[in-house]
Amino acid sequence: MTLPIDPAQNLAALIRCPSVTPAEGGALSSLETMLKPLGFAIERPVFREDGTPDVENLYARRSGNGPHLMFAGHTDVVPVGDEAAWTHPPFSAAIANGEMYGRGAVDMKGGIACFIAALARHVAEKGGPKGSVSLLITGDEEGPSINGTVKLLEWAAAKGEKWDASIVGEPTNPETLGDMIKIGRRGSLSGTVTVNGRQGHVAYPHLADNPVRGLMTLTDALLNPIFDKGTENFQPTNLEVTSIDVGNPATNVIPARASATFNIRFNDTWDAETVQAEIHNRLDTASGRRKYRKGRKEPVDFELVWKDRPSHVFLTRDDKLIETLSGSVAAVTGRKPQLSTSGGTSDARFIKDYCPVVEFGLVGKTMHMVDERVALDDLETLTVIYQRFIEDWFG
Amino acid sequence: MTLPIDPAQNLAALIRCPSVTPAEGGALSSLETMLKPLGFAIERPVFREDGTPDVENLYARRSGNGPHLMFAGHTDVVPVGDEAAWTHPPFSAAIANGEMYGRGAVDMKGGIACFIAALARHVAEKGGPKGSVSLLITGDEEGPSINGTVKLLEWAAAKGEKWDASIVGEPTNPETLGDMIKIGRRGSLSGTVTVNGRQGHVAYPHLADNPVRGLMTLTDALLNPIFDKGTENFQPTNLEVTSIDVGNPATNVIPARASATFNIRFNDTWDAETVQAEIHNRLDTASGRRKYRKGRKEPVDFELVWKDRPSHVFLTRDDKLIETLSGSVAAVTGRKPQLSTSGGTSDARFIKDYCPVVEFGLVGKTMHMVDERVALDDLETLTVIYQRFIEDWFG
Repeated sequence: MTLPIDPAQNLAALIRCPSVTPAEGGALSSLETMLKPLGFAIERPVFREDGTPDVENLYARRSGNGPHLMFAGHTDVVPVGDEAAWTHPPFSAAIANGEMYGRGAVDMKGGIACFIAALARHVAEKGGPKGSVSLLITGDEEGPSINGTVKLLEWAAAKGEKWDASIVGEPTNPETLGDMIKIGRRGSLSGTVTVNGRQGHVAYPHLADNPVRGLMTLTDALLNPIFDKGTENFQPTNLEVTSIDVGNPATNVIPARASATFNIRFNDTWDAETVQAEIHNRLDTASGRRKYRKGRKEPVDFELVWKDRPSHVFLTRDDKLIETLSGSVAAVTGRKPQLSTSGGTSDARFIKDYCPVVEFGLVGKTMHMVDERVALDDLETLTVIYQRFIEDWFG
Repeated sequence: MTLPIDPAQNLAALIRCPSVTPAEGGALSSLETMLKPLGFAIERPVFREDGTPDVENLYARRSGNGPHLMFAGHTDVVPVGDEAAWTHPPFSAAIANGEMYGRGAVDMKGGIACFIAALARHVAEKGGPKGSVSLLITGDEEGPSINGTVKLLEWAAAKGEKWDASIVGEPTNPETLGDMIKIGRRGSLSGTVTVNGRQGHVAYPHLADNPVRGLMTLTDALLNPIFDKGTENFQPTNLEVTSIDVGNPATNVIPARASATFNIRFNDTWDAETVQAEIHNRLDTASGRRKYRKGRKEPVDFELVWKDRPSHVFLTRDDKLIETLSGSVAAVTGRKPQLSTSGGTSDARFIKDYCPVVEFGLVGKTMHMVDERVALDDLETLTVIYQRFIEDWFG
């Protein structure tokens, strides 16, 4: 029986499955083929929810006597964009100049391919880890994230699964393999502020109340002053106004309403509740609800609606996990990786409720772009890093 | 032959014609019926332009030996809005509590009805004016204003028509008949400022450039400082931001572009060219194109597009015309009307290129609203004012 020890071969098989969210595209079946010879018990739960597409997921466990390590990831990929702009077809896994092209090459079929290759080599060379290893793989990371990792964790936990640590194989390195391990993430919150004015004719502004003025005041209060200067482990909290919308096509009409939508990424100075309180406070003060504002007869009439669920800020504090991974990276690459909490959210935000979690994978530079691709050298190096990590963590 | 000496009867006939722009609705034919017994020669030119509806117009002249007075107005009306909300059907001309209900009652079928009644009384009592009287009536004042007054003036002037003065019968009184004569109008200009940023993920703001920040800076520069404090005859210049639009539905994406549309109503401190220069100057300075702005590495990348044609500011300086009308209003109502340049634009902005023009009509409070209506007493009073004005101006 051939073991899947070659990460490039594993990745080529996965890239050839057109698994654009929410399509399974054959990718999970391809994983099954790789995992079975390694002694994994495999389950393929499908999760459903009204208003969202059904999503296939995979949970595979290789049981042993000892601690339980979970590798987490996703086989779904974002759309290919302008397919004609690709140098090689996005599901072809073509190799040119030492790089393999394809959607998902780094985000993150590549990470899965390397982890399986690492485990296969460990099995081939040393019989595999003494403890348990599981793969928690979803097909809904790039989509609404409703029928994916959250439900898969709940489902597995309900069956009695417990994990001691988790590594997520997302592309964490900005430029070069070994740059960065992620040991936490900022929180994220979105909301929409709507200012109610009084519609009227532009020639009679005293009979109207232009909500744009009030919205500018409130938007300024969202942006200034800065929320903090960052903390030991986190970048400064940052708020971006992602849209402002009035939608008034008539230049002779003062509109009735204006709204601004924002997203804030917050560090461990805050939690979701204190960020919300701070924003409410800023808006209440700037609007004049709190006290009389010079030059304004009445407070700005506004409402604030929070969107979606907040993502909570977290920081992983498992020294063994972090130091083992960091040491493996340094031993293989000769570089000491930065321990970072920068960047966007990932499914690690859900896993952290079950066990300590870190993230390390390929170089993310081409993710989500046309000509997403990975150096074959990086696939080999990441495989060696993962193998060393598995051996050290269980050892 | 019955002369149309009753303004309420004239108005009822006009209201019953459903002449929502651009429909003629029988309104101009109804006018013909009233004007023929008064000795008018009537023409009904239809103007056309690609991309706009054909519009019927009316030009009627009663020739005499002496000066030429033009009465200008429109028979088209705005839509009825929520018809079910009207106390009486909007094209029924129902009378209740001394008021006639109907779309166009004050804006401005009522003004036309009164002018025709005034002229009819003058003809009946004194044989009519010695000079010439013409009615220049369009069906495109509430619409795009392309196939209406502008072309009607050009068409009549091309035939050799010349006028010594014009009175526009728009509703000029805010509260009570006799409040206000309009002797000019502010100018009007609209434009859209678009800021080009760099799209990106909200978690990596240093890799993106949020155009909303730049747009807020530019919008603030449009609004502040004030343009002027007003002049002897004009209100202060005023700018309103009528829309801000980004249209970004993704709260995790920093948008690529943001735009603000504004309208400025400017007084005789300015003309269209100096207002445009001032706005360009404000934007260039605020954007940092002119000099380095603190805290910004590069200038805000923006473009400004002016919309439509500007309306030019004008002030009528014909003392005889203004004093005669003012005197007629005072003699009939006992009130000295304010000579004003406030409010929105009207077709007077086109007529002013041909002859001195003033505006006086009914009370505008219910214009464009559900239950637009006019007091029967006001119809009678305005008729008496118009008759006195005709007699005095020709006398």
